[in-house]
This record gives sequence, structure tokens and C-alpha cells, in this order.
Amino acid sequence: MSATTHTAPTTSTSRLDRAVTAMEAAGVRALLIGPGADLRHLIGYDTHPLERMTLLVAAADGNHLLVVPELERARAEAAGVGVPVHGFGETDDPFALVAAHLDGGRADEAIGVGDQLWARFVLGLQDAMPGATWTPASAVTRQVRMAKTPEEVAGLRAAGRAIDAVHAQVPGLLRPGRTEDEVGRDIAEAMLAAGHDAIDFVIVGSGPNGASPHHETSDRVIQAGDAVVVDIGGPVDGWFSDCTRCYVVGEEPEGYAEAYAVLKAAQQAAVDHVRPGVTAESVDRAARQVITDAGYGEAFIHRTGHGIGLEVHEEPYIVEGNDLVLTEGMTFSIEPGIYLEGRFGMRLEDIVAVTADGVERLNAADHDRVMVPLNP
Amino acid sequence: MSATTHTAPTTSTSRLDRAVTAMEAAGVRALLIGPGADLRHLIGYDTHPLERMTLLVAAADGNHLLVVPELERARAEAAGVGVPVHGFGETDDPFALVAAHLDGGRADEAIGVGDQLWARFVLGLQDAMPGATWTPASAVTRQVRMAKTPEEVAGLRAAGRAIDAVHAQVPGLLRPGRTEDEVGRDIAEAMLAAGHDAIDFVIVGSGPNGASPHHETSDRVIQAGDAVVVDIGGPVDGWFSDCTRCYVVGEEPEGYAEAYAVLKAAQQAAVDHVRPGVTAESVDRAARQVITDAGYGEAFIHRTGHGIGLEVHEEPYIVEGNDLVLTEGMTFSIEPGIYLEGRFGMRLEDIVAVTADGVERLNAADHDRVMVPLNP
Repeated sequence: MSATTHTAPTTSTSRLDRAVTAMEAAGVRALLIGPGADLRHLIGYDTHPLERMTLLVAAADGNHLLVVPELERARAEAAGVGVPVHGFGETDDPFALVAAHLDGGRADEAIGVGDQLWARFVLGLQDAMPGATWTPASAVTRQVRMAKTPEEVAGLRAAGRAIDAVHAQVPGLLRPGRTEDEVGRDIAEAMLAAGHDAIDFVIVGSGPNGASPHHETSDRVIQAGDAVVVDIGGPVDGWFSDCTRCYVVGEEPEGYAEAYAVLKAAQQAAVDHVRPGVTAESVDRAARQVITDAGYGEAFIHRTGHGIGLEVHEEPYIVEGNDLVLTEGMTFSIEPGIYLEGRFGMRLEDIVAVTADGVERLNAADHDRVMVPLNP
Repeated sequence: MSATTHTAPTTSTSRLDRAVTAMEAAGVRALLIGPGADLRHLIGYDTHPLERMTLLVAAADGNHLLVVPELERARAEAAGVGVPVHGFGETDDPFALVAAHLDGGRADEAIGVGDQLWARFVLGLQDAMPGATWTPASAVTRQVRMAKTPEEVAGLRAAGRAIDAVHAQVPGLLRPGRTEDEVGRDIAEAMLAAGHDAIDFVIVGSGPNGASPHHETSDRVIQAGDAVVVDIGGPVDGWFSDCTRCYVVGEEPEGYAEAYAVLKAAQQAAVDHVRPGVTAESVDRAARQVITDAGYGEAFIHRTGHGIGLEVHEEPYIVEGNDLVLTEGMTFSIEPGIYLEGRFGMRLEDIVAVTADGVERLNAADHDRVMVPLNP
């Protein structure tokens, strides 16, 4: 380890120390991390990805370096990142600079690049270090980020409370005659008022729009008899909320109550299944089995969940084929859905944390479908 | 060209046709484009980058394909993208799918990857097509995006008017005793009211903070005698605004007036230099010469400008070393700055468009420093 990282021991540098340990275990020489959640997590530095490369070189030998455009140097130094900062000028070659710091990269060396680093930087680094082999940094960083500390789980718990408070207001916003866009704007305001730093997404899928899981909002006018999927989330002090509930405006559509009972049972079965030692895919199977047994298997068209933390979607993914074994502190969504094209859709989502011997739900909003009366 | 792209000729598909022409000229077999400005520009599809890959395969032979996660397929098809859409399931390998569509990629084939495509996708695609050679897609897409059509310039002109209207309100917001954060929040509200779709950035750099070009806002309290750099921008109907003006609260600091006169002359010299046929770097030199001759050369620590359009920073970059020849329709910022550490900073920025025989400024806000009286 370099002297620099030891002069100011902080949470961030201890995360960097954990990353070094994980690098050694994985046989990775260095991680090259651009702006984003990994960078915030490892050294507490928050900046936007831009065409001038900002890159943390986290080296297994402890010789770390934060490479930034010269005009960002003052800001990076003021942020107290705990590693040396090197500014490069407008006509300098930042790729050559990184290569020189890593002695050019040898053929027997694996270098991990941050999963969201831009392609132009990946290609530039590959050109500058033709001998190295390239691998996603997440193989290392996920070890550091997946299992949250109690303080990190507390951050997600607070985000859960904030989004629960917003869902409590949704019945007052859903009235026939209003558009999804209008309802979405009100929800966004309520999210900021409830303590969100920003809006990450607002899905208001009414009637048939609820059957498209990635629908956001539209100018569709909500009508009596609509089922409405409301899936909302954003960061609260950096930790993400993400919660889906189902609303029915007036009388529910034919077949809705039956399908919802299946959905709720499937979500409960998956939550009940979670504990240290089970695999991610087995949680997916627990939800899917209930839905398949009830005859809706074809209508559950996505995985059961995704990890959540400093990013809204991160590892571990709760999906068939992921045999990762869950451990204490892992946090993820459990959100089965049933989508009947042309009719309606439904999805029920909580964030959960794996505890020492089971699971904690981080959302407490009512798990039943919420009936919104036409004349409140 | 495939039948599909001809059945619904739109602006977007004609851009795709232009991209095919540029691909042929560049000897590029295909472009692999993820969510972002290139995707919006080429096929009019707007979506967020997520861990499930969304990728346009734009092929030189016209056999285009939009690859999306299955749960996004309905949304993509409803968007009318004008190319076939292929949805992949949660346990499918999207990289193998792209490789199969391109026959595996041959060693003599160059494949262009979108400049901002995530590293995890770049590495996955490289693994699936080990024979191909990889190059940034911008070598092709910049040909299609740099020189704007008159309609596209009109979009940027409207964005310029919107941000000018915000700058006109700034003197009313800058009062001693308010923090940069407070002023920044008011500016953000004014930007939305003036027609911006979203806030991209708000820089309020007061006093010594103005000397850090990438400072955003802080809890620093604005004081009498502060010079303040205000650099703000965001999309208006998708086209970006970006404009910097300098304000002085009360009496100006010693040396400020002299430096500002140099800055204003430098910006004017660069604008006057712009016309079809000159190089990007010569515009940088025109501004830099004035500042260097006046003895502030060391204090102008960044390039003179950046292209702007569907992204706030795009090609052409106005920087030493870029010998690109400017042509009609190119749009970029001209924003020289002078930064005196510990004292103050200043930057004067307009967006300009190259016309048939000269240049048009797309910002009309007063180019003098704006004196804000202490007791208005």
C-alpha cells in the first residue's frame, strides 16, 4: 500500500483496501474505474462522465492514482479522495499516462475495467496496453459492494421509508380524467418532498399500459376500471429506493383479483425463501413456481429481482442461471409480475436485506392491491 | 437496404441512410450503438442505459436490427423505430445474438462501437466476435451529427433563447448572504420555466470558487465584492443550451475589469475567426493569442470550446491538435476563461453556428460583465 492511502484512513480508503484484497484473490493487476457508483463507493468521488476521461487506477500493489482533466484537478483534490491526483492537459494523452503508470500492461496481466466505463475509453486503453487482458471490474467490485455493512443497510432502510411515504399518497392522485403524465409529475414532487435527492424513474402504467414493464408515463387518460402499476424510485442520500404497488381505480377488471392473489402469494413465497446460503436463482424459482402453478407462467416475463444500493440495478441479480450464494447484508428487489397484453399488468416489489438468519423487508407499504374509490 | 427501413421513410431512417453511406466510406462493417444521443439521432429511440443491453446494429449492408431485452420490446415497437426489433429473454446471451447477426465478425472487418457504450457490453461483444477489429463509432456518427441541418440549428437557436432568458433573471437572484446552492436552485427552476426539458448542469462559482472551472455550487455564502461565474445548460426539446456569463456583486475585485476586457476581446476574436474552411484548432488559437498577448496565457487552462447538439459536449472540439475543417451547420461553444487561483475566475461562452459564409451567435445575452448593485 502507498503511504498516501494510509495517511487519511476513512471509510472510502478502507473500501479501497478491501478492493485490493479482492483484486489479489482474483489475480487482477488493477481496476480502471470511471465516474459512477464504483468510484463513489471506493474513494467517495462523485463526478459526471464526460468526454475528458476521469479514471481511478486502483492497483493491486497499492500504487493508486486518480487521473483527471487538469481543469478538474482542484475539485478532485478538494474532495479529499485519499489517493494521489494527476491532472492531464487538453493536448495530453490520458491513455498513455495510465499505461505508463501500469508499466504498459503485460500479457499475463488481467486488468479490470469498470462495467460502465465508456467504450471510447476502453478502446483507447486497450490500444495503449496491447499486452494486457481485459475483464469487467465487477468481478472484483461486486465482492466489495454486494454485501452491505449495517450502515449501508440503514441507508437503504431510510430510502424504503421515503418511498413508502410516497405510495401512501398515490391513491389521492389517481383520479379518472387525469393523465399518467400528470400523476407522474405529482409523484415526482412527492418523492423530492419525501427526501429523495433526485428522481430516477416514475412508472405509471394504467390499463393496458401496465402490461409493458418498461412503460414510463404517457398522455393516456386514466379511466374508471383501470388497474394501474406504479413503480417509483430514486436516491435518498445516495442510496436507492425502488418500490412497486398496484392500484385499481373504481371496479377491478375481470380476472384481476384472481391474478393478484397469485402475485401476492408468489412474492411472499420468494421473500420467505431468502436466507444466507440459498442461491439467487432459487429465489427466482420460488416466485416463479407459484405463478407457473397457477397457469400464469408465460405472463411472468422478467427475472424476479435485482440488487440495489448506490445503483438502482446492481448485483446480485435474482435470475435463473445465477448460482451466487446469498450472504448477510445483500440487498435486492423481489418483484414478480403478471402481464396480460391488451388487458392489464401487475407487479409487486419490495426491497429486502439478507439478515444473519433470514430476511428483512425494507418496504412496509400495504401489499394488497389498493382500491381507489371513484368518489372519495 | 432492407425492406423494413424503406417502408416508413422518416427523418430518422434518412439519418440511418446517411450513416450507411458514411460507414461505406470509412470501411466499417457495422455500428453497435447503445442508448444515448446517437441512438436518438439515428432511429429516434430514447431509452436509459441499463444492465440489460439495448443495442442498435446498424449494418453497412442495410440489415439493421434493434436488440432489446424482451420486457422492453413492446415499448421499442411502439416507438416506431423503423428497423426490426429483436427481444432477448432473461437467460439468453445477447452478445451471441449480435455476433450471429453479423456472422461472427471477420478479422478483416472493422466494427464501430458507440463511444458511450458500457465497458461490460464492449468486452462481451469482443469475446463473441474475436475476429473483428474495434473502433469508436464516432468516426462514422460524427459525420452524420456534426453538421446540423437548418431544422437542427433552429432547435439549438431556441435553446439559446431559453437560456438567455434565464441569464436575464440571474442579477435578481445574486444577493449577498445567499449561498451558491440557493441561487443554483432558483436558476434550475427558472430553466424549467423557460422551457428546458431537464437540468443538465448549474455552475455558480462565487469569489475564489470561480477559479475552478468544474465547480458546481456549494454552501459558500455570496459576499459583496464577489465576482460570480454562472454557467448553465440543459436540453430544450432535446437540443442543448449552454451559456456562461460573469456577474459582479457590488464593487468588482482589483484587476477584474482589466482581465475581463481581455476575455471579452478574446471571445470576440474567436467568434470573428469562424467561417467554413478554417480549422477547429485555429479558432482555439484566435482566442488564446489575445489572452496570451495580454499576459494571462497560463490562466486559460482549458480548450476554447466543444460541439453541441443532442449532447452538451460532442464533436467538433475546439482545441489545439484538432485540424478538422469547419463546414456550414457545425455548432459549438466559444468559451475562453481566465482563472486566478484564490482570487476569481471568469468565462464568457456563446454557442455559435457556422453559416455559409461566416458565423451566427445563438446567444444574445449581454457580453459585458453584469454589475449587480448591492441595493437594487
